[in-house]
Amino acid sequence: MSHRQKALEYANTMRESFLEQLKDFVRIPSISTDPEKKAEMQAAAEWITAKLRDLGLREISIIPTEGHPVVYGECQCADRPNAPTVLIYGHYDVQPSEPDDLWKSPPFEATVRGENLYGRGASDMKGQVAATLFAVESILKNGKMPVNVKFMIEGEEEIGSPNLNSFMESHKELLACDVALNPDSGMIAADLPTITYALRGLAYFELRVYGPEHDLHSGLFGGVVHNPAQVISELIAGMHDQDGRITLPGFYDRVRPLSEEERAELAKLPMDEEYYKRQTGVPALYGEKGFTPVERVGARPSLDVNGLYSGFTGQGQKTVIPSWAMAKISTRLVPDQDPAAVFDQLKQYLMEKAPKTVRWELIQMSYGAASISDIHHPATQALANAFVSVWGKPPVYKREGGSIPVVGNMQRILGVESVLTGFGLSDDNIHGPNEKLHLPTWYKGIQTLVHFFYNYGEQG
Amino acid sequence: MSHRQKALEYANTMRESFLEQLKDFVRIPSISTDPEKKAEMQAAAEWITAKLRDLGLREISIIPTEGHPVVYGECQCADRPNAPTVLIYGHYDVQPSEPDDLWKSPPFEATVRGENLYGRGASDMKGQVAATLFAVESILKNGKMPVNVKFMIEGEEEIGSPNLNSFMESHKELLACDVALNPDSGMIAADLPTITYALRGLAYFELRVYGPEHDLHSGLFGGVVHNPAQVISELIAGMHDQDGRITLPGFYDRVRPLSEEERAELAKLPMDEEYYKRQTGVPALYGEKGFTPVERVGARPSLDVNGLYSGFTGQGQKTVIPSWAMAKISTRLVPDQDPAAVFDQLKQYLMEKAPKTVRWELIQMSYGAASISDIHHPATQALANAFVSVWGKPPVYKREGGSIPVVGNMQRILGVESVLTGFGLSDDNIHGPNEKLHLPTWYKGIQTLVHFFYNYGEQG
Repeated sequence: MSHRQKALEYANTMRESFLEQLKDFVRIPSISTDPEKKAEMQAAAEWITAKLRDLGLREISIIPTEGHPVVYGECQCADRPNAPTVLIYGHYDVQPSEPDDLWKSPPFEATVRGENLYGRGASDMKGQVAATLFAVESILKNGKMPVNVKFMIEGEEEIGSPNLNSFMESHKELLACDVALNPDSGMIAADLPTITYALRGLAYFELRVYGPEHDLHSGLFGGVVHNPAQVISELIAGMHDQDGRITLPGFYDRVRPLSEEERAELAKLPMDEEYYKRQTGVPALYGEKGFTPVERVGARPSLDVNGLYSGFTGQGQKTVIPSWAMAKISTRLVPDQDPAAVFDQLKQYLMEKAPKTVRWELIQMSYGAASISDIHHPATQALANAFVSVWGKPPVYKREGGSIPVVGNMQRILGVESVLTGFGLSDDNIHGPNEKLHLPTWYKGIQTLVHFFYNYGEQG
Repeated sequence: MSHRQKALEYANTMRESFLEQLKDFVRIPSISTDPEKKAEMQAAAEWITAKLRDLGLREISIIPTEGHPVVYGECQCADRPNAPTVLIYGHYDVQPSEPDDLWKSPPFEATVRGENLYGRGASDMKGQVAATLFAVESILKNGKMPVNVKFMIEGEEEIGSPNLNSFMESHKELLACDVALNPDSGMIAADLPTITYALRGLAYFELRVYGPEHDLHSGLFGGVVHNPAQVISELIAGMHDQDGRITLPGFYDRVRPLSEEERAELAKLPMDEEYYKRQTGVPALYGEKGFTPVERVGARPSLDVNGLYSGFTGQGQKTVIPSWAMAKISTRLVPDQDPAAVFDQLKQYLMEKAPKTVRWELIQMSYGAASISDIHHPATQALANAFVSVWGKPPVYKREGGSIPVVGNMQRILGVESVLTGFGLSDDNIHGPNEKLHLPTWYKGIQTLVHFFYNYGEQG
């Protein structure tokens, strides 16, 4: 029996043990946003280091940051010199569990019902982190690793990874690798193995429009003052044209066009108009003309008003001309848009369009670049072939509309591409009550990762 | 000496006494919105009835309503049969005094500093009610009245007069009269006696736009969902055209055009662009093309967003596509617009313009008709001539942009026109701290009212 076969068999026989170990990990309420949970955060970090120690990895440490620490460990122990190195990214922190009364079993009890393990973090992403550990274990217990691996498991993903960039900046050599494996992105469905190859970036703003010095009586002044709530509405309305295109000057100049190959690939995804209507409950979809819904979400930029406020918003009526109005506005960006340039484009738009009847202010809140990886990258191919081995079919390639800033930040800081996948499903209810992990998919995921390491080792 | 002369002289010699009596009235904290002030409301009502009793009026009573009572008293005692009857409208309630620490002397102490009496209600409108009582006193102490008078002094004006309409409905005969005198409208400046001959009406709505069933992740759905905050902005933006005209279908159909005579009259008011810029602090005015600011505020309808709300409005950022958006929208109407028709016009606009990507709801909050009175009405002429006698010049005629619903309601319920005037000044700071009454203007006001009653008696 080949080494690979032995590892796969090991993984199969260890199912019960893997599940029990994962339950222990899920039982730790490592809620990063809760200042009362410092000890639990430490416990979760220690659970991982104990596991890394069992596997015989080196350089194992819980490295402090200004916030929660990063767990590190490596195995520079490939079966041949010059084997490639995979940096495995993950996070050990979880979202708060509230509202607890909506959970059918306590969120930190790790309960199996039917084919699923229920518990906060089971899917996002303790199950995914554990799957990488168990895949590495399956290989090491039966011989040498086909690639070198490094683990970088952070504790602040659910609060926006405020200290990860500086951690990566100051540990560039330690983290040197050929590719990053990020299993924090899930599968569209249990029968649709999925590789996410692109993520949208984000640029977030607050726009404020100032009119009269204080709220005015709408009878005494209605007709001579340009109402700031009206002005902000006019400005927002002008940010899209009739075809649903964003009008900020130069906004599309650097948008990377979709290739025919990509469009054909995206067309395979089971996410048509009906899918999005079902997901959102809207009576009809909206968006940029000339693109399918899945293209609009994945491969085209968008601009949304995330919040709007002006004047009197309580019960009943108050006849006031508000003195100011506010909008939270964010853009989702695609390669090769520059988030910093979008600030200038929005500013330019406002300079051209804002009337002389008001004053305005544009506040930049945050930004992160989009990322895209080559689906012909050797690691992506290794993963795709792994999916074929386990699922009997190639994965779908998905562009993700959301933003996972660590991917772009790794590209920028470490100069490394990420392969994004994962064995969570879209109905896992991550961040919500009754989060679950589909165990048959998870077991197949461990097998897939075993294949991935071998495939990449052979190719690399 | 004529009877008129004697009355005027009496008013002159009684200045100190009138002031002392007014101070007593102002000292009563008759705050209608404060449930703790029931006794003080009663005391203010009794202060008036005591005064009416001193004057020898008849049918004096404090008539209960569902809220605060109405004070009534009449003098069907004109010097000749068939003399006209003037219904004097006023209110004895005042606004709360908060914030008290901004008052230089306690709000219910009635303090004279320089030429002014300071105290809550001194200008709005205890001083005005008292002026009518003292004018009637001046006449009655020196002979018979040239007209019949009826006093209807309510206690709920500052809380929107919720019970006055039903009071008028059920007391139509008691309140029968030839004209109403409403001294709740002030003067533009101490040297500009002012008659307000038109008031704008009001129609108030809440518009709600519903999109997805719950807030969405703006990354996962940005580009396929029509954001309700964007939709409401587009709808609001479309409610005015490039010339500042309101686009609701049929909105201007019944707007009574301004006559050349009126435009000439309004042009005399010292309320130019600079005036409105100073009053509001806006960098530039806005409004319907082809009309001066004072015409736009007084004689043209307006539409304002009074409040706007959607999504996340707190500190920081949240990348959400809001599930709904809300706008409070009100229109100020002019003769002969029908407030009920405006609801249909706004609904029609929404049916035509709201996209199929959302659901919407329009809630009618309240409405009141505009009112306008003939400046050639005998009572208006009588008042204008009275101003000439006291100020040495005719009054300016002003259209008021705000709404005083009692005027339209009296027209509708009692079938009677109102003459609106008053001796408060625009810098009296009514509703604010340090409300004051300019005493030299007030004394001239009492003289003016004496002339008015004689003039109207002679004409009527």
